[in-house]
Amino acid sequence: MKLEFWFEFASTYSYVAAMRIEDAAARVGVEVEWRAFLLGPIFRQQGWTDSPFNLFPAKGRYMWQDLQRQCRKHGLPLRMPSMFPRNGLLAARLACAHADAPWLPAFVQAVYRANFEHDEDIADETVIAACLAHAGQDAASILPDAQLPAVKQALIARTGDAVRHGLFGAPSFRVGDDLFWGDDRLADALEACTALRSR
Amino acid sequence: MKLEFWFEFASTYSYVAAMRIEDAAARVGVEVEWRAFLLGPIFRQQGWTDSPFNLFPAKGRYMWQDLQRQCRKHGLPLRMPSMFPRNGLLAARLACAHADAPWLPAFVQAVYRANFEHDEDIADETVIAACLAHAGQDAASILPDAQLPAVKQALIARTGDAVRHGLFGAPSFRVGDDLFWGDDRLADALEACTALRSR
Repeated sequence: MKLEFWFEFASTYSYVAAMRIEDAAARVGVEVEWRAFLLGPIFRQQGWTDSPFNLFPAKGRYMWQDLQRQCRKHGLPLRMPSMFPRNGLLAARLACAHADAPWLPAFVQAVYRANFEHDEDIADETVIAACLAHAGQDAASILPDAQLPAVKQALIARTGDAVRHGLFGAPSFRVGDDLFWGDDRLADALEACTALRSR
Repeated sequence: MKLEFWFEFASTYSYVAAMRIEDAAARVGVEVEWRAFLLGPIFRQQGWTDSPFNLFPAKGRYMWQDLQRQCRKHGLPLRMPSMFPRNGLLAARLACAHADAPWLPAFVQAVYRANFEHDEDIADETVIAACLAHAGQDAASILPDAQLPAVKQALIARTGDAVRHGLFGAPSFRVGDDLFWGDDRLADALEACTALRSR
């Protein structure tokens, strides 16, 4: 039983999950499917034109405090981004176009580190090019994929799938049809995987 | 270092926390301060006239699914309440009036079980009277406290404290000035208590 990992590049807790999911899943022998999607369209559907962490200041203040604690707990660096949320459209298109590439996790993690460790603008092509290079890829040959109509369409369809699956935030995990929301549900999701496997 | 436990009687995850906090805190020798408050006024301040689990259907559907899993994990009974959220004003006034009574935890837990195990209306005086009796108290002498102006005022002040402390949901935990939100942060909050104690 595979674990579907649904992430949004702008999402702070997706950063935490993306950095620790490979080790956590490997420890219990579970394979991870990386599924980039966009939260923006989902938030807009419920009338939000910004991150709930900006719309609801108390929630936002808490999140940044809690995020620091979670990063400390998991040994992850964190530099408060000077812009939040950042536009992850370019990165999400590439992650969707190359969803099953063996270098995809390294690319995704590089994008998250750019955003939350190095405070870089992940909407910038040069930043994303460096992330592709970090994942051992030739940026010049991969970056243009983001402009392909089929790739744009695939990300729109992916985000539609997210809505159909009942996703409303990120990170989310799916095990069969069961949904788990939030980095703090990773252990539960992995346990659901191993429980299904042992049946 | 004490752990402040902030709960709202209508809140589903507060039910989970209220039922397991005594054992969890006792295991690490931490004392719990039970702090009832009202989420309604806090939600209204950010423009919500109902629970976010009703206002945002995908979030609500997920919560009920996740709540079942959390209850199963912690060995707690759960009967889906036929009304959500229920009005916890009466119970909150009494829990505020008798915050430091030794029978308070038993009363609070009885109210949560009425709501989420027995699907009873916790706004009903007879239900709350039974909860007081369950906690070994004479309901007839305690119920009238809910109508005392000083008690009403104390709950309003308590909810004002919650806002000042940055609370935006329930359950929440405070350790010194550090805030932890959600049943799934109970372990982190207890760890913060014991870390402060060992300094």
